[in-house]
Amino acid sequence: MSLQFWFDFASTYSYPAAMRIDAVAQARQVEIEWNGFLLGPIFKNQGWDDSPFNIYPAKGRYMWRDLERLCEVHEIPFNRPSVFPRNSVLAARIASRFSNAPWLVEFVKAVYRANFVDDLNIADGSVIAQCLRSVGMDAATAIAAATDRGAKALFRAQIDRAVQQGIFGAPSFISHGELFWGNDRLEQAVQWHARGLQQS
Amino acid sequence: MSLQFWFDFASTYSYPAAMRIDAVAQARQVEIEWNGFLLGPIFKNQGWDDSPFNIYPAKGRYMWRDLERLCEVHEIPFNRPSVFPRNSVLAARIASRFSNAPWLVEFVKAVYRANFVDDLNIADGSVIAQCLRSVGMDAATAIAAATDRGAKALFRAQIDRAVQQGIFGAPSFISHGELFWGNDRLEQAVQWHARGLQQS
Repeated sequence: MSLQFWFDFASTYSYPAAMRIDAVAQARQVEIEWNGFLLGPIFKNQGWDDSPFNIYPAKGRYMWRDLERLCEVHEIPFNRPSVFPRNSVLAARIASRFSNAPWLVEFVKAVYRANFVDDLNIADGSVIAQCLRSVGMDAATAIAAATDRGAKALFRAQIDRAVQQGIFGAPSFISHGELFWGNDRLEQAVQWHARGLQQS
Repeated sequence: MSLQFWFDFASTYSYPAAMRIDAVAQARQVEIEWNGFLLGPIFKNQGWDDSPFNIYPAKGRYMWRDLERLCEVHEIPFNRPSVFPRNSVLAARIASRFSNAPWLVEFVKAVYRANFVDDLNIADGSVIAQCLRSVGMDAATAIAAATDRGAKALFRAQIDRAVQQGIFGAPSFISHGELFWGNDRLEQAVQWHARGLQQS
């Protein structure tokens, strides 16, 4: 059984988690289940129509500085996006539809780099198409497959699954019903999961 | 110059930070300025009349479990208080009025233990009196000194100072204008401050 990793392409702290999780997990022989989803519907249920980092300015100012420091510590390139949060639904639908594809992880990282390094608009189909091509995929085919009725239903079910498991933010990690929230909990979540594997 | 440590006696994550900061700081020869304050007025400015952990139930459920796991990792005793958050204004006024007293740190820890280990009501003057006596103080004298007009004005100015420095939650740490938020940032804040001391 894999450790569940839940990320939103618009979420600032999901970015360093997505860039770091492979190395942290491999060191403990933990496999990752990559689950793209959307915070929007979850925030809406909490009465927010925007990122809490925009709603609460002091918290937002702090977050950008904290993220900058974090990326420096982990040697992850970072440039503050000129628009935040960017609409991440197309990218998330592709991640959901192709969750088991061998190119998925590289696609996820390409989208994060587009948003948080190159300041590109990931809501734009042509930016996502470029990310797909960068991992060797035919963009039009993949986008069509990820946006048909079946894929949309699958994606809605994916968000419901997040909520049902108690997820309220991103990134989140779930190991055997145990929830961990935030890039700060990545190491603890992987450690918890590895311990569970040893015991089973 | 000392590293500023800002804590609220009602704040869950302030508890492990208060219990851990001495050891972490001493290892790097960093001195701590202990600043008791209140989150209530800051949350009120953000439109909240309760703890966000009560307003957002999924976040609250997670917080209690996360705190339990954290305290286990750090070997800090913890019992979930039957009331949360408890009114911490009397304890915070004492911490503000006697911020430089040699018994202050032990008093702070006694109040945290009362709230998060012994499930005592720290809003109750008799509980705070017991905490004062446990550090060798005459309770009536200390409480009177911490609640006169001058002390109340001093305390209000203390909360204003927190807001002016960009503080929006607790625990917080400030080193040379650099803000760090959360028990998770304790080590980074101390390290940052130690580096600043070396360079100056």
